Amino acid sequence: MLRKKFLGEFIGTATLVATVVGSGIMATNLSADLGIDLLINTVATVFVLYILITLLAPISGAHFNPLVSAIAYLRKELTAAHTIYFFIAQILGGSLGAMIANLMFEHPAIDPSQNVRDGANLLLGEVVASAGLIFIIFIAIKQGIDKKIPRLVAAWIGAAYFFTSSTSFANPAVTIARSLTDSFSGIKFSSVPAFIAAQIVGAALGYAGFKTLTSKSKSGK
Amino acid sequence: MLRKKFLGEFIGTATLVATVVGSGIMATNLSADLGIDLLINTVATVFVLYILITLLAPISGAHFNPLVSAIAYLRKELTAAHTIYFFIAQILGGSLGAMIANLMFEHPAIDPSQNVRDGANLLLGEVVASAGLIFIIFIAIKQGIDKKIPRLVAAWIGAAYFFTSSTSFANPAVTIARSLTDSFSGIKFSSVPAFIAAQIVGAALGYAGFKTLTSKSKSGK
Amino acid sequence: MLRKKFLGEFIGTATLVATVVGSGIMATNLSADLGIDLLINTVATVFVLYILITLLAPISGAHFNPLVSAIAYLRKELTAAHTIYFFIAQILGGSLGAMIANLMFEHPAIDPSQNVRDGANLLLGEVVASAGLIFIIFIAIKQGIDKKIPRLVAAWIGAAYFFTSSTSFANPAVTIARSLTDSFSGIKFSSVPAFIAAQIVGAALGYAGFKTLTSKSKSGK
Amino acid sequence: MLRKKFLGEFIGTATLVATVVGSGIMATNLSADLGIDLLINTVATVFVLYILITLLAPISGAHFNPLVSAIAYLRKELTAAHTIYFFIAQILGGSLGAMIANLMFEHPAIDPSQNVRDGANLLLGEVVASAGLIFIIFIAIKQGIDKKIPRLVAAWIGAAYFFTSSTSFANPAVTIARSLTDSFSGIKFSSVPAFIAAQIVGAALGYAGFKTLTSKSKSGK
Repeated sequence: MLRKKFLGEFIGTATLVATVVGSGIMATNLSADLGIDLLINTVATVFVLYILITLLAPISGAHFNPLVSAIAYLRKELTAAHTIYFFIAQILGGSLGAMIANLMFEHPAIDPSQNVRDGANLLLGEVVASAGLIFIIFIAIKQGIDKKIPRLVAAWIGAAYFFTSSTSFANPAVTIARSLTDSFSGIKFSSVPAFIAAQIVGAALGYAGFKTLTSKSKSGK
Repeated sequence: MLRKKFLGEFIGTATLVATVVGSGIMATNLSADLGIDLLINTVATVFVLYILITLLAPISGAHFNPLVSAIAYLRKELTAAHTIYFFIAQILGGSLGAMIANLMFEHPAIDPSQNVRDGANLLLGEVVASAGLIFIIFIAIKQGIDKKIPRLVAAWIGAAYFFTSSTSFANPAVTIARSLTDSFSGIKFSSVPAFIAAQIVGAALGYAGFKTLTSKSKSGK
Repeated sequence: MLRKKFLGEFIGTATLVATVVGSGIMATNLSADLGIDLLINTVATVFVLYILITLLAPISGAHFNPLVSAIAYLRKELTAAHTIYFFIAQILGGSLGAMIANLMFEHPAIDPSQNVRDGANLLLGEVVASAGLIFIIFIAIKQGIDKKIPRLVAAWIGAAYFFTSSTSFANPAVTIARSLTDSFSGIKFSSVPAFIAAQIVGAALGYAGFKTLTSKSKSGK
Repeated sequence: MLRKKFLGEFIGTATLVATVVGSGIMATNLSADLGIDLLINTVATVFVLYILITLLAPISGAHFNPLVSAIAYLRKELTAAHTIYFFIAQILGGSLGAMIANLMFEHPAIDPSQNVRDGANLLLGEVVASAGLIFIIFIAIKQGIDKKIPRLVAAWIGAAYFFTSSTSFANPAVTIARSLTDSFSGIKFSSVPAFIAAQIVGAALGYAGFKTLTSKSKSGK
């Protein structure tokens, strides 16, 4: 069973990153208007997230995101070993996805991004994006509307691509993978650690918000 | 429980306004085409409204809008004190959301809008947008399809952003909050009172239309 | 009850046309790119159709379209008088909607369109758009999936705006109403009769296709 | 019954191709921005796919794609004769759809495309697009969520239009039909065989992935 879960996380994260990176390259190939480019990037990501979470949730839980797996570990829903496996599947899968996207568009398979993304305001964007993501996932589970998670998460990422200054990476494995493409969605590897730190802070805040809003209350149902 | 409801309205309105304001700044940063900018603003708002109403309805009712809370009061579903609390949560939350959006994009946290929005035709736009919003919410409740309210309200705002001349503020708390950002979605504070008056007129018309269409009829189910 | 049904058709068609006309004016005010303009026009129309059919179907059946009412009459689901009432409600409602949209954007309330739309290829577009619309509605009813009609019809119009050469009017009442605005979505009154004729041909073809595909078969369920 | 199934595949594939080709022509007529053009092409295709699969699945299974019919044959769900019939319906229907779209926009009914699409990277795009399509369909069936196939497939094609370098043909019948239009969505006939070969490779990979991920596991309900 663990092999299937590993595969689910691997294939899911690979497809997610291939979509993010590939649609970013396609967009900039087609249009010089960056608003159109981000729109294309968003539509593709929203559609694929909806599909991947719907179909892979019964297999691996459809985390595709170390933030989610880490919280599942802290909630004692995953063992430490299992969590490490998930991290590996997510990072390797994401990296493969970036490579496939690069190759589909005749870029080098591994093409380190030169796109520096820094500044406190972008990190605030990552905090907001990650906090919202974690808040949404766990409040939906608490309310027993797990079946709506595919569309809730897809909608959140779709909104956060536009309204957070960082365009919402909100996922350490995807952030690392996106350092492997020197294109629209890329991030220079030196910018990755601060992004991941901000994502962890956001996840902690989102989870705290979730606990505050649901403790000892009969929400849901 | 009231504390949770307050928090729900506060977080919901904050996130809604952060989305509206943030996506407006992102859009104008990326594209000089105002059609694309409004499209980006709309997509982000629609997604977030869907999420917020879905998840916070079980907690606070997911009003995020003094028009809705005021009607709930008149229908004797909220006490006067409760209604006042909601107004405060919505206005404070919305203001915080505008400030977070400003900060994410390196604008001053409080950045008074210079964007004058006036003219009888814009006020007619607000009347239409607010009437439709109230009509939709209460007819859906009457028909027992509360579960569709997240997508109905999101779709209405998505349409009204485009087809009403005012781009559909339709919400006094959000209107006030949007006076705090000098960007795409901002409104000069001096334009706010007339907008709110038009919204109140629209809400009254929408509620009257709802009563006319549903009185003594076995609609729904 | 007939009064309510009349009102339902009146309000629904008014809102539909206000959306089509208003979003067309908004779009051309904001962007010189006609692709963006049609995209905005489409998104607004799709959202509003989904809402109107969802909420008004229990009240009036949510036809908003003389083609649908006429077929309902031929299927003996409406009396002749009832059908005439519906035609009137749809045409008056649609006209009011166009006027409201004109006023919201500071155009004259009645502003005859100078936009000639002719040519056999546009009429073929209307045949295709109307055939599909009627086919979809009646096959969905036959299959017992009436609840999906709001999204099926909205999706069809959304697609047909783009893939039919006429941008899919597919509705005689809306076509007449759109002759009252000299803007993006307008049609010169002299072009209206041929459009309506093509719509009737399309509706007949669509209904014939529906009968062919469902006669004596256990489709649905 | 076979006649109805044939008709279902014929009408469905015709409508699908008319949408793809027609919206492509409309888009390039309206906007010189290729990003906007692909966005229009995508929105129209997503909407129509959702409709066609929803309504025609109970009649013919809503394959519209020889890859799907061929796998159904290999799974012994279709006889050889039935499968050949489906291929014919799909190719003839698709071709008729291309011709209708050409005529709607005053192009010659048959207008051979001069658009060469080649290069290993485009073929990799077709492999990815087709693998994902087949994977999604069969895993959804296995999980007993057939009812979500209309939106899953529509979402996949919507994403793959953007993130695969070939813009996701992923369908031999549609690929052949698209050789009949010298417009945005066309493909020169000499490029068709390699595309179909890549689609078959992708389908085989997608099916293998599906088997790997679901064998001997109690995924899905």
